[in-house]
Amino acid sequence: MITSPQHRAALPAAEDTAMREALAAALHGPRGANPLVGAVILDAEGRVLVTGHHRGAGTRHAEADALAQAREQGIDVTGGTIVVTLEPCNHQGRTGPCAQAIIDAGLARVVYAIDDPHDPAAGGATTLREAGIDVESGLHAEDATALNARWLRGVVERRPFVTLHIAQTLDGRIAAEDGTSQWISGPQSLAHNHGIRGRIDAILVGSGTVAIDDPRLTARTPDGELSAHQPVRAVMGLSPVPDGAALIGTDGRFMHLVTRDPREALGLLFESGVRHVMVEGGSRIIGAFLAAGLVDELVLYQAPTLLGSGKNSVGGLGIGTLADAQAWAWDHSDGGAVRHLGRDLLLHLQPAAPAQ
Amino acid sequence: MITSPQHRAALPAAEDTAMREALAAALHGPRGANPLVGAVILDAEGRVLVTGHHRGAGTRHAEADALAQAREQGIDVTGGTIVVTLEPCNHQGRTGPCAQAIIDAGLARVVYAIDDPHDPAAGGATTLREAGIDVESGLHAEDATALNARWLRGVVERRPFVTLHIAQTLDGRIAAEDGTSQWISGPQSLAHNHGIRGRIDAILVGSGTVAIDDPRLTARTPDGELSAHQPVRAVMGLSPVPDGAALIGTDGRFMHLVTRDPREALGLLFESGVRHVMVEGGSRIIGAFLAAGLVDELVLYQAPTLLGSGKNSVGGLGIGTLADAQAWAWDHSDGGAVRHLGRDLLLHLQPAAPAQ
Repeated sequence: MITSPQHRAALPAAEDTAMREALAAALHGPRGANPLVGAVILDAEGRVLVTGHHRGAGTRHAEADALAQAREQGIDVTGGTIVVTLEPCNHQGRTGPCAQAIIDAGLARVVYAIDDPHDPAAGGATTLREAGIDVESGLHAEDATALNARWLRGVVERRPFVTLHIAQTLDGRIAAEDGTSQWISGPQSLAHNHGIRGRIDAILVGSGTVAIDDPRLTARTPDGELSAHQPVRAVMGLSPVPDGAALIGTDGRFMHLVTRDPREALGLLFESGVRHVMVEGGSRIIGAFLAAGLVDELVLYQAPTLLGSGKNSVGGLGIGTLADAQAWAWDHSDGGAVRHLGRDLLLHLQPAAPAQ
Repeated sequence: MITSPQHRAALPAAEDTAMREALAAALHGPRGANPLVGAVILDAEGRVLVTGHHRGAGTRHAEADALAQAREQGIDVTGGTIVVTLEPCNHQGRTGPCAQAIIDAGLARVVYAIDDPHDPAAGGATTLREAGIDVESGLHAEDATALNARWLRGVVERRPFVTLHIAQTLDGRIAAEDGTSQWISGPQSLAHNHGIRGRIDAILVGSGTVAIDDPRLTARTPDGELSAHQPVRAVMGLSPVPDGAALIGTDGRFMHLVTRDPREALGLLFESGVRHVMVEGGSRIIGAFLAAGLVDELVLYQAPTLLGSGKNSVGGLGIGTLADAQAWAWDHSDGGAVRHLGRDLLLHLQPAAPAQ
């Protein structure tokens, strides 16, 4: 139903509170390639009607989530204000444009924190204004920018968000002297890792890993069934991928990135639509991404075992002295920084300083 | 005051409950070289009067603790029963013999779980019986044995309890390529480590560590002052210790163990009275103790940093394939298995199977 929107006066105190609430709601979304967005709908007197947030790739945007809740609860939002942490989108993505949904719902005013960084001209603000809706931006912009620093960086740098996955022993080994590495981590860690695979766009390994382990790189449920969502399986390196390699599969979701340069590999992935990639190894690839400052998130499964020899998890950072060690910070979001997963420990970290 | 003890009938249900309570109280003591012991004093009707436990080397034994509490609270224990998880001692150690204290207090009956393993003939049970006290042993002996498996093993093997200390990066390095290692871990981890130093009998390092780092190995408070208790500073290895080495000190608490064999080094320490030693490194010594199965407890400070090269924390275990990896188990006692210490993570583990 299309109603005729009407201008509405700002209610500064109520909108300020609503934006704080929207920022807090945004944090309930999953960290990763997608932005964290929250939205609060106020009635004409500034009272909170509903609060929504974005729940990850392929699901409703925060605005759509709030509007859907209002519909489900039979709440009339006509003439109200939506306060949202990011400029409403204008594109027909997987979930439809939010600007149009806001117009359709009869809202009178939109307050958002920061512009959509993709392409300012294509943002929803113009569409909303053209429909006669009162639009204001910049409220708590600093907090909203901090909230999505990782996502904004990826968009600006035109590269996917990079999660690095390492499964190692207490002494930092990812394979024994004879090359055996399956499985250093226990079943709960493997299940957790397959959970990540089931919600990202691509997995990346080096050609050496393909030659040694011949991994399938599919996302599987704990029963061994294929998950509904399968990531692109990408190999980087100059060596050709053997014809019979398991990860080639039959679904066309295989890519060979013929480069040894991590930044180039990420560029190729971004061009093909990948927004979140998990780098799984081996240690040369891990070292190359870390050395280039291209890791946004470190997911480290630490088994309570010792090998004392074999392959180190990380190599080739070119660091000669302790003062130059790479600093990381515990990431308490998304399940916590440290967690027992069966007998293993899951460590979750982010760069102490933003990756370059 | 010596009263004349009288035999007293057993109160099986009350004594069973009291032994469970004593076992639980014992767990409040610090893990390490000293046994965990708990004691409960019952009156003639089987009512609990006081509960005590051992609080670590140099402090009151559990029986003395319970008796002292009774004295302080003005409780008359004459004619009562003491239920204790370990045979009361008979030797004039740092805290006086418990058997005599029990006789002096006028208790009528002693129920204990397991014999003192040091020398059965020298235990307190004989002394107690000779004084006319009713003595029974073996109640919940299995639980009491499990409670002190680590301590009993050390006593039987005539070697100190071994804590291994490692301060490493996320990727398992204890020094950078140029040898720098001070400080991989942060001030809170260093303070925690000095806390351990302040309550153990000895610290052990290899002669290589002395040559490279010239450590003092003293226990210091966070202000940099020397702690009241200083551990023996032991160096093992065949190379002579340089005359000017900092750890020689002036207090005579320095030992050079001229051997490369961890078992021999532990034997020498045990003979000189050491019951709890912390092995601090370097990696060759760490590997030798781990390979010999002579580590009872692993205290691992994990800094959130990456080096990608340098010295591995653990080497020389002689393990060729993943199936032979050494298995460890999270030790939830004594502060927990995993703990944030400033920016570092403290991991606390024990051998998954008893050390050999």
